[in-house]
Amino acid sequence: MSPQHTEFVKRNEQYVASFGDKGNLAIPPAKKLIIVTCMDARLDPAAHLGIKEGDAHVIRNAGGVAKDELRSLIISQRLLGTREIAVFHHTDCGMLTFVSDDVRSIVKDASKGDANVAAKVDAIDFLEFKNLEESVKEDVAWVKSDPLILPETTVTGWIYDVKSGKVSQIV
Amino acid sequence: MSPQHTEFVKRNEQYVASFGDKGNLAIPPAKKLIIVTCMDARLDPAAHLGIKEGDAHVIRNAGGVAKDELRSLIISQRLLGTREIAVFHHTDCGMLTFVSDDVRSIVKDASKGDANVAAKVDAIDFLEFKNLEESVKEDVAWVKSDPLILPETTVTGWIYDVKSGKVSQIV
Repeated sequence: MSPQHTEFVKRNEQYVASFGDKGNLAIPPAKKLIIVTCMDARLDPAAHLGIKEGDAHVIRNAGGVAKDELRSLIISQRLLGTREIAVFHHTDCGMLTFVSDDVRSIVKDASKGDANVAAKVDAIDFLEFKNLEESVKEDVAWVKSDPLILPETTVTGWIYDVKSGKVSQIV
Repeated sequence: MSPQHTEFVKRNEQYVASFGDKGNLAIPPAKKLIIVTCMDARLDPAAHLGIKEGDAHVIRNAGGVAKDELRSLIISQRLLGTREIAVFHHTDCGMLTFVSDDVRSIVKDASKGDANVAAKVDAIDFLEFKNLEESVKEDVAWVKSDPLILPETTVTGWIYDVKSGKVSQIV
């Protein structure tokens, strides 16, 4: 597949043409909200939650794992005033299909015995899930108990269904 | 401000009603692409890059710092076949307005001398920027040099302008 970046400027033109007054939006999220969700290509959180530019911080990584984003959560809360965190994991997530040792083996096999690579990848916890609902509950419990998260934060946990586009609250 | 999560199910209904055949999308991103960008509320990367559900992994954190997301980048490349990484930072980014010690002081002051909190926050590098363009170049250089990133990856670096909605390639 040819690189996609050569298309970015062209694809961006339509957005720029209809940009309107979005240049006046303030830095702090208007809804004082953080959405944490998976990097999965099938997810468009702004679209499926009806979030507009300026409303909410959106943090995304493999799995939508909040506990992997303490740095960003602190910056959002302490410097930009957010007071609510909604954690979304989703059905058919890749994180349910492997364990950390599988990824470590793939990386080490491809490196042809590079000891530096082996040591580095062995030190990474890939934070995979065994059970989807439990992963949401555990991640919400982490947010609620971490001493660096503001205790007055409203925290909820959700599952996004990739087959229907529907969101369901778990906790 | 009242919690936003009570609105999610209602706001999600319209998306579900027009979901179409998106339930058939495959897990691996069709464009073999990862977008790394900031959590900033003013950014809607799917909209400003014309990315559709199924096209690309989207990783977002405070600043759009790729080097803070090695876990997710490895999972994306090794398990889900992506081969291109585009790093976006943006104008008027909060990461340009503080240094790590500022955040550490805010957190420690609020904790009223809790030694556990102090030790934990002192250990966090908040990865702030001094210069926007340099931050993009440095992050791209990191992606290109990290031994756990596939050497055949196409890597580009971009700035998104929050005043115009325009993207510009830096590297």
